Amino acid sequence: MLTQPNTRKVYVRKVRAGVARSERDVLAVEEPLELRLIHRGESHRVAVTMRTPGEDFEMVAGFLFCEGIIQNKDDVREIRYCVDLPEQLYNIVTVELREEIEFDATRLQRNFFTTSACGICGKVSLESLEMQGCVPLSLAEPKISMALIPQLDAELRKAQQIFSKTGGLHAAALFSLDGKLQALHEDVGRHNALDKLIGTRFLAGKLPLTQSILMLSGRTSFELLQKSLMAQIPLIVSVGAPSSLAVELAQNFNITLIGFARGDSFNIYSAPERVIEIKN
Amino acid sequence: MLTQPNTRKVYVRKVRAGVARSERDVLAVEEPLELRLIHRGESHRVAVTMRTPGEDFEMVAGFLFCEGIIQNKDDVREIRYCVDLPEQLYNIVTVELREEIEFDATRLQRNFFTTSACGICGKVSLESLEMQGCVPLSLAEPKISMALIPQLDAELRKAQQIFSKTGGLHAAALFSLDGKLQALHEDVGRHNALDKLIGTRFLAGKLPLTQSILMLSGRTSFELLQKSLMAQIPLIVSVGAPSSLAVELAQNFNITLIGFARGDSFNIYSAPERVIEIKN
Repeated sequence: MLTQPNTRKVYVRKVRAGVARSERDVLAVEEPLELRLIHRGESHRVAVTMRTPGEDFEMVAGFLFCEGIIQNKDDVREIRYCVDLPEQLYNIVTVELREEIEFDATRLQRNFFTTSACGICGKVSLESLEMQGCVPLSLAEPKISMALIPQLDAELRKAQQIFSKTGGLHAAALFSLDGKLQALHEDVGRHNALDKLIGTRFLAGKLPLTQSILMLSGRTSFELLQKSLMAQIPLIVSVGAPSSLAVELAQNFNITLIGFARGDSFNIYSAPERVIEIKN
Repeated sequence: MLTQPNTRKVYVRKVRAGVARSERDVLAVEEPLELRLIHRGESHRVAVTMRTPGEDFEMVAGFLFCEGIIQNKDDVREIRYCVDLPEQLYNIVTVELREEIEFDATRLQRNFFTTSACGICGKVSLESLEMQGCVPLSLAEPKISMALIPQLDAELRKAQQIFSKTGGLHAAALFSLDGKLQALHEDVGRHNALDKLIGTRFLAGKLPLTQSILMLSGRTSFELLQKSLMAQIPLIVSVGAPSSLAVELAQNFNITLIGFARGDSFNIYSAPERVIEIKN
């Protein structure tokens, strides 16, 4: 459901080799979205995030799943836009939770405060994931051939429609184990793009993603790895560099994390067992 | 003051043209930092952010200035690490505010919730900056020559030491109007890099930055523009694409925003009056 345009046309002064002229250009739209939860008749203002409009319901569902607030789609009674204030139409999303589920508003606030980090040092952050019930993924399967990685990279570039227009969006793409593109989600925020991807699958009842490969257009942080772990994604291929804590999380939970993927060159930072090398 | 290492060595499996071998590699460190405020004897837990260690005091000072909590360095009585928990040493920073200043904890919480956006639609976000007392910058000066832009790009690349090692850091650099590099700050989070830059100047009593050029290594969002406006930076040059709301803020407040800066090619999105074109 596309509710607001996700690109905007502007006139810019383009300078090429020292020569300037005015031309139309396309920008990625960035707009705030406020998330409100309703549980047992009480309303909780949860978060405001800057995002690119589109797939708003999927994004908030993915966010709430990755924060551990909801476990399956039956936990959600309804997702709707708040239409009280006409000028803020499509900028406030209300999620009504089923009365039967347990919901601790203070815990969510703490989670939000910690940008999904749940701790105040890397070690504590990693331990708190274990406390949330996250267990290491099995290394026995799935496995992929090393020759698949360059194909994913090429496929993502071909599919990234908005990106090619604006250059301003991060992408999160889902591939099957034989390299078929299954989903592509884009946003000005890389965490939003991943929330949209996971939320779409969540609402379709298609989690966990144990037989999938996630491809990310940018750098990989702890937060992106934490969300991937919640969805049990075993393989992540990223175009950019990972952070130290992203690699630690990937190592602790047996996620195969690949970075700097450019054609047939890439780095495997963790769980290399899943990537079958081609012997010459 | 460097308190923890900002890079970490790891062994990775490097694949080049289909051939894999194990090699040492360097990662940018990502660790949580918790910010606590003390005001009139009361302690407030404000935020936890993922950041690259180093310049922690400068980063929290810059964050608090950009949020409008502190206006000058005398508002801060002391900044220190919390050393109660040895294993979390250097991961909790306490800022003690002067008793005389007014401080509204609920307002800070609201600000934090909104990721510095202060509203729930772009229009409201921009209006709330005006309500905070932000006024458009003067277009009369400063002005720079178009020929300066390629020099800044080249200078930043030369100076970005950690980036060249890890590829995982965002940079925020400050230049004088004649193109001299004055400061360079790096972090896994682009907002942190800018907080470090502004906070360093804040603690040195060297704000506002009305005679400076800010160079950013990545894309530009509303949040980065909002921080720049607080420091009254008139010129921003970015390597990546801006978002729609970043451009709107720049237009409303007369900030010259340049994007896609690569050598002698770049786009001017707002206030082009400040860039003197070279006539052939």
